[in-house]
Amino acid sequence: MSEPLDFYFDFSSPYGYLASEKIDALAGKYGRKVRWHPVLLGVIFKATGATPLTQAPLKGEYSLHDFSRSARFMGIPYAQPANFPIATQHAARSYYWLHGQDCALARRFAHTAYRAYFAGGRDISSPDVVLDLAASLGADRAALAGALAGQALKDKLREACENALKIGVFGSPYVVVDGEPFCGADRLPQIGRWLESGGF
Amino acid sequence: MSEPLDFYFDFSSPYGYLASEKIDALAGKYGRKVRWHPVLLGVIFKATGATPLTQAPLKGEYSLHDFSRSARFMGIPYAQPANFPIATQHAARSYYWLHGQDCALARRFAHTAYRAYFAGGRDISSPDVVLDLAASLGADRAALAGALAGQALKDKLREACENALKIGVFGSPYVVVDGEPFCGADRLPQIGRWLESGGF
Repeated sequence: MSEPLDFYFDFSSPYGYLASEKIDALAGKYGRKVRWHPVLLGVIFKATGATPLTQAPLKGEYSLHDFSRSARFMGIPYAQPANFPIATQHAARSYYWLHGQDCALARRFAHTAYRAYFAGGRDISSPDVVLDLAASLGADRAALAGALAGQALKDKLREACENALKIGVFGSPYVVVDGEPFCGADRLPQIGRWLESGGF
Repeated sequence: MSEPLDFYFDFSSPYGYLASEKIDALAGKYGRKVRWHPVLLGVIFKATGATPLTQAPLKGEYSLHDFSRSARFMGIPYAQPANFPIATQHAARSYYWLHGQDCALARRFAHTAYRAYFAGGRDISSPDVVLDLAASLGADRAALAGALAGQALKDKLREACENALKIGVFGSPYVVVDGEPFCGADRLPQIGRWLESGGF
């Protein structure tokens, strides 16, 4: 029962950001680690036919309100980005490239990118912004820029999205604990109970 | 600040049922009452273009799993109905008719209908089942049957759905506390915090 949790998220997902601020500590409380898997909701929604939350009539306006209220409820800094939602393939590919070199650096990058976008007013759809953030953590900017231009990293992210769809990921955040799926930052209390009790 | 909360729900909504088991006690803890408003998600989804949860690819299968897990998490009896989702106009209209006679009876009917459907294996899309449930609580079966066949009650429910859409209701449950909207049974903790603090 010491298998890591799997945490699927899109760097443009507000609820993914909120979960990212809590998931490691929650899992750690029960002696568990978390594997992070950035994916592209655009690819997933194309496969499932889903609509981005903020484009849905009535629900869209409510969601924008709920993002920041949920952040306050969870004690997490949040400032609705002016450009939203955004394409996050550069951030996601950078994560996988960094992960191939240094897992801890990749985790720091994920937090840094999420916070830059959802609390710092940075537009992480820009490759330059992503490279700057990675470089600020000590990554090799030129090497990452080269990798982002190559095919291998594109294939890596495509495979990550395909794998996510195969296991049933339809939104962000999506967390799997010992085969049990939980979707949404609002399922963190259920995840805690599940980890505590081994199911309920 | 002693205005009642407004609780919008569809009798075929699992998360509406879960909220219905908690909302009065939660509000009561802070000296507040709740106004219940059954509506038809079918009418609301027609206006907003939304898809019923269980018809969405991947999300549908997950949702069926999440309904019963969320019920266990909240300590509420739940048995996924074989016939789901269902048309709930008879249950909703009966609620409004009963409410015109006796508010407390209408509330007991709402609980009885919800529990009959989500825990008792009864198909409350049937007018006969709805009439039986109302009669079991002491309502005049023949008078209710007559009212269900009339136009006034149909108009009443149509107006309730139109009013709900006007204030932004796009799903069930949808709770409004002093103008602040909360959608989903998973927002009950936020509602509690809001009632406790007068906002956050």
